[in-house]
Amino acid sequence: MTISLSITTRGQGLYNITRELNKLVSEANVKDGLCTVFVQHTSASIIIQENADPAVQDDLHNWLNRLVAENDALYTHTDEGPDDMPAHIKSVLTATSIGIPVMDQRLALGIWQGVYLWEHRYHSHQRQVVVHISH
Amino acid sequence: MTISLSITTRGQGLYNITRELNKLVSEANVKDGLCTVFVQHTSASIIIQENADPAVQDDLHNWLNRLVAENDALYTHTDEGPDDMPAHIKSVLTATSIGIPVMDQRLALGIWQGVYLWEHRYHSHQRQVVVHISH
Amino acid sequence: MTISLSITTRGQGLYNITRELNKLVSEANVKDGLCTVFVQHTSASIIIQENADPAVQDDLHNWLNRLVAENDALYTHTDEGPDDMPAHIKSVLTATSIGIPVMDQRLALGIWQGVYLWEHRYHSHQRQVVVHISH
Repeated sequence: MTISLSITTRGQGLYNITRELNKLVSEANVKDGLCTVFVQHTSASIIIQENADPAVQDDLHNWLNRLVAENDALYTHTDEGPDDMPAHIKSVLTATSIGIPVMDQRLALGIWQGVYLWEHRYHSHQRQVVVHISH
Repeated sequence: MTISLSITTRGQGLYNITRELNKLVSEANVKDGLCTVFVQHTSASIIIQENADPAVQDDLHNWLNRLVAENDALYTHTDEGPDDMPAHIKSVLTATSIGIPVMDQRLALGIWQGVYLWEHRYHSHQRQVVVHISH
Repeated sequence: MTISLSITTRGQGLYNITRELNKLVSEANVKDGLCTVFVQHTSASIIIQENADPAVQDDLHNWLNRLVAENDALYTHTDEGPDDMPAHIKSVLTATSIGIPVMDQRLALGIWQGVYLWEHRYHSHQRQVVVHISH
């Protein structure tokens, strides 16, 4: 079972998609299996992070923005704006795809884990996430 | 087939879980397939690294500890100790989940590859790893 | 279905393997499913990146080479050359394995996405990539 999710982002940051994914897993009627979450872009990521303290997400975001700076003299790909080449680098340092086991018709996440789409661009985007669920 | 492994860690470092995984793969009686290894925490990682020279693991560990420093003035999530926010960042820079093909009832690892649970916290933890094995 | 691909690299850089993978997916006769791409080495990576502007790949490569410098005084694993320990670190910061959904007998990649083997060593290598395709 393969489904496309369309997620609207409104600038850089983490967007929790756990609820949407658990809904798909529940509808797929798969008791034990595997759910693969894949983002069809190279300037956004799929990650798993803590869902409790929002400060964790802020710190993650600020730390990565400092590591992968804009307007780095090293960049030659600059036509698409100062946030584009950093977005590609962030995509490579994080993840494009994550496989999550399914147990009892739910994602087998730890109690503090959420699944996030991480938008690395400034402007609003329509992001396509492809979800594959199997036994 | 979905199984939970419980791994006891005793501080920061890499813990080789290849043997436990190959035992599960062998018991699953899957000749060719896929084994997905997922850690249910956001302050520990699953990685594949060289299993030959222990100096590689030491260097990895020291390099990442320098990149993701403790007591960074940027952090606002500081309640859970100086090693907690760095642990979340390290989790995002490495991996929460890895899919490994199975061939001839064994993980299709390269000769120098081992699968490791990477503990990013100081104190001893009981870490839950969920393993999914399919055809 | 599990197949080994052998890729010859000629020094550091990204090698596009999308065409080879789509050929395998087409031959596997899987309409909707999952394709897992796994590299059997710890000094090369599998990543997904932009396939349009070659400057993106150059910038990625140069940025990561600056972050993970050679001849770092921190390294104790130095016997295999100045590019070896950086290669292991780069492998951990990027990915060893990626799961890509299959739709309509093709990898469900975004329009600008390509799959790359990223060689982190200087010399020519024969790199083994294991591909698992399932429903």
